[in-house]
Amino acid sequence: MEIAALLTSAGINIGICVVLFSLYSLLRKQPGNVNVYFRRQLSSGHAKRIDPFCLERFVPSPGWIVKAWETTEDELLAVGGLDAVVFLRMIVFSIRIFSVAAVICTFLVLPVNYYGQERIHKKFPSESLDVFSIKNVKEGSKWLWTHCLALYIITCFACLLLYFEYKSIAKMRLAHIIGSPNNPSHFAILVRGIPWSAEGTYCDTVKKFFSNYHASSYLSHQMVYKSGTVQKLKNDVEKMYNVLATSADQNCKPSFLRCGFCGDPTNSFKKLSSQMDRIRGRSRYIDMHLCSRKKGHAAAFVFFKTRYAAVVASQVLQSSNPMLWVTDLAPEPLDVYWSNLCIPYSQLWIRKIATLVASIAFMLVFLAPVTFVQGLTELDKLQLKFPFLRGILKNKFINQLVTGYLPSVILIIFLLTVPPMMILFSAVEGPISRSGKKKSACYKVLYFTIWNVFFVNTFTGSFIRQLDVFSSVKDIPSTLAKAVPEQATFFITYVLSSGWASLAFELMQLFPLFCNLFTRFILRSKDNSSDISLTFPYHTEVPRVLLFGFLGFTCSILAPLILPFLVVYFFLAYLVYRNQIINVYVSKYESGGKFWPIAHNTTVFSLVFTQIVALGVFGIKHSPVASGFTIPLIVGTLLFNEYCRQRFLPIFNNHVAEVLIKLDREDEQNGRLEEIYQQFHTAYCQLTVTSRESCKSESSSHQLDRSIQDPEKQETGKETSPIDKPWIARSTLDIQEPGAK
Amino acid sequence: MEIAALLTSAGINIGICVVLFSLYSLLRKQPGNVNVYFRRQLSSGHAKRIDPFCLERFVPSPGWIVKAWETTEDELLAVGGLDAVVFLRMIVFSIRIFSVAAVICTFLVLPVNYYGQERIHKKFPSESLDVFSIKNVKEGSKWLWTHCLALYIITCFACLLLYFEYKSIAKMRLAHIIGSPNNPSHFAILVRGIPWSAEGTYCDTVKKFFSNYHASSYLSHQMVYKSGTVQKLKNDVEKMYNVLATSADQNCKPSFLRCGFCGDPTNSFKKLSSQMDRIRGRSRYIDMHLCSRKKGHAAAFVFFKTRYAAVVASQVLQSSNPMLWVTDLAPEPLDVYWSNLCIPYSQLWIRKIATLVASIAFMLVFLAPVTFVQGLTELDKLQLKFPFLRGILKNKFINQLVTGYLPSVILIIFLLTVPPMMILFSAVEGPISRSGKKKSACYKVLYFTIWNVFFVNTFTGSFIRQLDVFSSVKDIPSTLAKAVPEQATFFITYVLSSGWASLAFELMQLFPLFCNLFTRFILRSKDNSSDISLTFPYHTEVPRVLLFGFLGFTCSILAPLILPFLVVYFFLAYLVYRNQIINVYVSKYESGGKFWPIAHNTTVFSLVFTQIVALGVFGIKHSPVASGFTIPLIVGTLLFNEYCRQRFLPIFNNHVAEVLIKLDREDEQNGRLEEIYQQFHTAYCQLTVTSRESCKSESSSHQLDRSIQDPEKQETGKETSPIDKPWIARSTLDIQEPGAK
Repeated sequence: MEIAALLTSAGINIGICVVLFSLYSLLRKQPGNVNVYFRRQLSSGHAKRIDPFCLERFVPSPGWIVKAWETTEDELLAVGGLDAVVFLRMIVFSIRIFSVAAVICTFLVLPVNYYGQERIHKKFPSESLDVFSIKNVKEGSKWLWTHCLALYIITCFACLLLYFEYKSIAKMRLAHIIGSPNNPSHFAILVRGIPWSAEGTYCDTVKKFFSNYHASSYLSHQMVYKSGTVQKLKNDVEKMYNVLATSADQNCKPSFLRCGFCGDPTNSFKKLSSQMDRIRGRSRYIDMHLCSRKKGHAAAFVFFKTRYAAVVASQVLQSSNPMLWVTDLAPEPLDVYWSNLCIPYSQLWIRKIATLVASIAFMLVFLAPVTFVQGLTELDKLQLKFPFLRGILKNKFINQLVTGYLPSVILIIFLLTVPPMMILFSAVEGPISRSGKKKSACYKVLYFTIWNVFFVNTFTGSFIRQLDVFSSVKDIPSTLAKAVPEQATFFITYVLSSGWASLAFELMQLFPLFCNLFTRFILRSKDNSSDISLTFPYHTEVPRVLLFGFLGFTCSILAPLILPFLVVYFFLAYLVYRNQIINVYVSKYESGGKFWPIAHNTTVFSLVFTQIVALGVFGIKHSPVASGFTIPLIVGTLLFNEYCRQRFLPIFNNHVAEVLIKLDREDEQNGRLEEIYQQFHTAYCQLTVTSRESCKSESSSHQLDRSIQDPEKQETGKETSPIDKPWIARSTLDIQEPGAK
Repeated sequence: MEIAALLTSAGINIGICVVLFSLYSLLRKQPGNVNVYFRRQLSSGHAKRIDPFCLERFVPSPGWIVKAWETTEDELLAVGGLDAVVFLRMIVFSIRIFSVAAVICTFLVLPVNYYGQERIHKKFPSESLDVFSIKNVKEGSKWLWTHCLALYIITCFACLLLYFEYKSIAKMRLAHIIGSPNNPSHFAILVRGIPWSAEGTYCDTVKKFFSNYHASSYLSHQMVYKSGTVQKLKNDVEKMYNVLATSADQNCKPSFLRCGFCGDPTNSFKKLSSQMDRIRGRSRYIDMHLCSRKKGHAAAFVFFKTRYAAVVASQVLQSSNPMLWVTDLAPEPLDVYWSNLCIPYSQLWIRKIATLVASIAFMLVFLAPVTFVQGLTELDKLQLKFPFLRGILKNKFINQLVTGYLPSVILIIFLLTVPPMMILFSAVEGPISRSGKKKSACYKVLYFTIWNVFFVNTFTGSFIRQLDVFSSVKDIPSTLAKAVPEQATFFITYVLSSGWASLAFELMQLFPLFCNLFTRFILRSKDNSSDISLTFPYHTEVPRVLLFGFLGFTCSILAPLILPFLVVYFFLAYLVYRNQIINVYVSKYESGGKFWPIAHNTTVFSLVFTQIVALGVFGIKHSPVASGFTIPLIVGTLLFNEYCRQRFLPIFNNHVAEVLIKLDREDEQNGRLEEIYQQFHTAYCQLTVTSRESCKSESSSHQLDRSIQDPEKQETGKETSPIDKPWIARSTLDIQEPGAK
């Protein structure tokens, strides 16, 4: 590939980006698209009205860029949660490290590569890209120390940045825990593997166990029902309703089944709190009633009096049979993945193994289209096989298009099927929280992407040949050293096409946009509140950003020409994702920064991988000095990673006793505990009344809507209109009407 | 190698064993050898006197065998602790599985091998051993299903046995915890990484931290001193002694510095308990005094009011900096590895990596002598290189001796240097308990032995060639399938020589015997109480037994001739080790059955390895059916292992809350807690007065012996005469004179 082809590709991509960005700035100003581009504001009730009779809305403007740029981290934290901030930190980290790398490599490595061999350089546009890569440096060159030095600088700077980022994010995670004092998940644990006893119900067993062994801290518990029993429970609810309806006073119908996170401006919350006591008085009846079923549930949420007690109960081995009474910290209420809770605990390990095997199989089967794509970059071979193509490909522009652009596009289309598959695998695996599912999918997509984009493209050829590459362990560095620089060109075009274009498409929100247009113009529906309130797709975006980081590190000293394109990509990503977090995605649940360890590990892997490839390259180029200096760098990087693992990782896996005890004390001193306890009755509600409808009907006619839906099924399409978590940064439990102006 | 050579080897070994066993039965009856062969009884004061004028003592007798056979498991548990029982269970497991394997392979596999090829069989003595191995089965044979069936039966039976053993040992471990209600280690945790504060001493910091965050359960604490400060403390002790000596009443000198495990019959314990109160009253002074040092210790034992509280404190992440306030369950007092306690916690991870690297390097360097040994079994090559040997080796007997016996002897001698090295590595690694050190060394020796005895012997040749074998991953099964049957002969002789002889030498206790003879006849010392009270060398014996198990599984269907020799070995081992545990080794500390997971994992590894080799063999022999059936067996075995890991392993890594809470309650109801608390003052004593001397001097002249020794230095040679753990099965703390008749 020549410079000209690269510039063509860059031109096309810049053009597409500019057009799409402008189009976006127009589309977002149209009142009809509010529910596409301002979903978050809409769902939280803060969407500003757009004046339909304003000229401005037909002129593209960079206002959204300014807005995205100016938003502070605190605002983002409030709007998108810690995960969003962590994700943006990944991008900022990448901008920093690749800016430094770009400067170093441009001034240090690029000239060495360019003048590496005594040759007559062609005109600049028709110069091959290989001239800028390490391939152009002749064997035994004395200048390879520049590459080694650049590698040292990049590694050291990356480690330094990683350390401070890890430290700062660990601090933010602690602050996040401290900052949500009313979070009921801190007081709750999830118990699975409850043994079945012939004497009583599961409910009795749980009560007996925890009031026996955790008598001083046990508060209450709540059984989890199997999805299949929802229908039965619907009948129960009706019965209960009748009981309550007849005995409660007639003026005010109870609504205890509502979950407390109905977002519409109604007065139901006030009633809720006023009726809490009455319902609690009757709770014995309800408990007995619910507990009467002997089968169908073997999981429960158990609430404790203090956060510390909950953490202790979640970490200590409860029973002499480790498959029974398995305790985990409960996820946040909106984060609970209900349908997985009742999976028998003894099944989980086999599910994990099965999904692991399935994911690996999927990864390998996926090779077929990718190897085909790779064939496109080698047009000569293709022309030999399909002679009729020769005429078309003689056109220089089409040739450049096919070599520079088409392969990436096809790859992207195939890659689109991956995240849904991985989410499916992760769901089958049996995580108890949605954020856990997303994190697990994130890992799978990451491995998948790095394997299928990087390794498979690097080692082109048949499936068997690719596996052969890794069957000979000690040849790996030199094999990589030969293959990676060869494919640097492909990776540059990949950054241009997949990277830049994906950002533009992300911004455009094509799918929701078409849905919206379809609803408005085909269905002629005027209800523009058909809320597709999606959460941020961390499982696709984190791997994407990390993949580009991986490509950047790997190619940095081998083919430094990739770096400017990468920096531009990350800079655009910074703006686009900020905008999306502010305007589009709803943050219903979060993992509390648990995506950072993934980023950290991947970056360290990228660094070590880069160093191994460099080792191979220095070996091929017969530079023992450079090779010799690279080995301590590898050791040092691995030691650094181990240190970080010791120093920071436990904070992301466990809660810190010190912090929790302090929080507990504060609450005790302020007398807030009782208020928090009251929350527990409604916090974890498996059966949510479709709140929007119920709220409407209730506000109009004060009748309890009895239609019940399984909350899992709401995930994809319609979802109860969510509010930002009610317990965050709210010191008292005077439940106000959320979203009320 | 021929049958005759094998029989020669077996004959030599049987002869040696009979001679040594008879010699042992004579030597053990000599009064002068009591401190060699009855060390355990001697140290616990139960050694019976041998009548020196009895004719019986000059006649060999099998009395010890009967005694060893008849001892029940409960007696062994009382005498040798849980670890000894677990070790014997490993041997019993091996006897069972290899008896079954021997029967199956003799009737199923051996005939198939023998008649595998149509050949005229030689006379039996000159028949080659290869005729009995799978090498003799011709390619594409229809009879290979017998091997596959045998593999299935052996695997299933092994898994079944493993499961029930794991279950039973897990139960025993829990019973062991319940059975030692006064064990102070259950109430204590070890805190490392105490942050240095400018305001107060470490002692103050610990007090402050735990009385702040664990106020309800914190009882007291005890600082750990750096080994280097022992000398300084000696001075302190003198000062303290003066303070106490002047104020205490003059009739009864205090001896609070003594550790409570002085084994001699003195009356000091009574004084100790009577003075406890007085000393406790003065403890504030002592605390202040000890705490006045600002540097030199950053670890402490913290005692809690209940066992549950201690477990909780040990498992919860204490601080937001995971490198500070690191808590672990305290080891038992005699198990504490004092000199490691003050290693800065932040150093540990790097120590672990360093020792890992060092162990691997040691493993690889060790190849040199082993490859030389291997050369001896291929005499033809040796004769070509050293022509002068030809004359000697023409002698048939010498030839058989050299091929059948010498290689193993040389290997054994080299292997003798390994355990001390590995113990050294494990000590540097920084474990906090001696049993932990032994367990870690056990792992290292195990990997080392399997690698150096099995793999290196299998893949003979230069160092580089051996590594080459593993660089090509997918060829491993077929490479192994070719190499393992080739070396089966060597492994049979290895079992004969190394196995049988090592048991005889173990029984003879050659080194202590020579020491004893040296003391008695050269030094003319009549003090036969020069106690070399060694603990059981699990780190050498567990790997040995597991290695033979590994060889047994691997060769079982390939060369079944090894099995009878193995069964004999394990049967002898059963008797010998029982005898040694009853008579020789002192059980001062134990890991509580933590050696079983090692045995379990190794056995599963052996099984899977056997299956992989079988897969390779079936592949080479062109038997797709047998290969096809082997793959599900591998998967099944791995799944079984994963299940056991989930089901049982947590019990070995953590304490069970249920059990501890029950124990706590019992103690509370019985009012025993106060008594247990009193123990804590003396339980963990870093500075032990050399008790023997002090006891002597005290009983004669009531003077406090002030010579202080670092307990670590007593490990190898002289040790304070130990008693069996004072807290086990003793319901009250009325400390009696141990060993008093």
